[in-house]
Amino acid sequence: MEDIHIVPIGVIYTPHEHIAGMPVQPAGAEGIAGKIVMDEAYADGLMDLDGFSHIILLYLFHKVEGYILQPVPFMDTTPHGVFATRSPKRPNRLGISIVPLTAVESNIVHFTGADMLNASPLIDIKPYFPKYDSPTGAVRAGWIDAVKGVDIQKIRSDHRFE
Amino acid sequence: MEDIHIVPIGVIYTPHEHIAGMPVQPAGAEGIAGKIVMDEAYADGLMDLDGFSHIILLYLFHKVEGYILQPVPFMDTTPHGVFATRSPKRPNRLGISIVPLTAVESNIVHFTGADMLNASPLIDIKPYFPKYDSPTGAVRAGWIDAVKGVDIQKIRSDHRFE
Repeated sequence: MEDIHIVPIGVIYTPHEHIAGMPVQPAGAEGIAGKIVMDEAYADGLMDLDGFSHIILLYLFHKVEGYILQPVPFMDTTPHGVFATRSPKRPNRLGISIVPLTAVESNIVHFTGADMLNASPLIDIKPYFPKYDSPTGAVRAGWIDAVKGVDIQKIRSDHRFE
Repeated sequence: MEDIHIVPIGVIYTPHEHIAGMPVQPAGAEGIAGKIVMDEAYADGLMDLDGFSHIILLYLFHKVEGYILQPVPFMDTTPHGVFATRSPKRPNRLGISIVPLTAVESNIVHFTGADMLNASPLIDIKPYFPKYDSPTGAVRAGWIDAVKGVDIQKIRSDHRFE
């Protein structure tokens, strides 16, 4: 299979300058503001985005190199398969964050829950459809259900994925 | 900004051979089975994935070319910004589907809710964390909240994004 070429469509600005010490999920970054500056060429694609309370951001883990197939994630002390974690050291270093949208002004998108590094290249924005993106019923979450006493609000990254 | 190189890590097999006539979300593909064959090189990364009832699939819309900044989405009759839709004709043609996981066997992952084309290149699998990936509270979904009388179970794609 051929390589796939992806083009950054903007830049995500956040207060996080270093991988260590960051929140590990938007749920751990409550109230932390981020700002997307989208390339002007794509700004027309933001029409009506402001009707959504939440958006899905797809971005590059631009400071990460290489991958670990069975990392010890920040929220646990034993290894799991990388595809069962959200570790940034993964075969394709793309991150997904579902975040509250605060405002759209021309080619600028303001949001909170910023859990990505400053200057992360933006790959895509998708609207969050609560009806279709929130599975209900018997939703199990394996190892993360089993972890006790971890407070996502307090947990921060360390140097393991630098 | 430089182009980003992404490598397919496997292939997603589904019953959908053509863009027209497909379900438009996993919620419209209930009971439709899909099978991922992951490259052997990454199979160790699947450890513990079977503990999760749902997974996030990231894949390439490999039959789509070009993009439309203000498309008329399948679920509506008026145009919206592409970033406020899940249209496959987007600047980076990557799709996200949150689907029920049914089984993991070595490098094979079985799932249902298959709403992507057959032979879609797999880019990433991430575990679905219900606690962190389901925003609660005042969740608004703009134009899609305003659309009346559309049944996601029945709606199918047409030729507009070929």
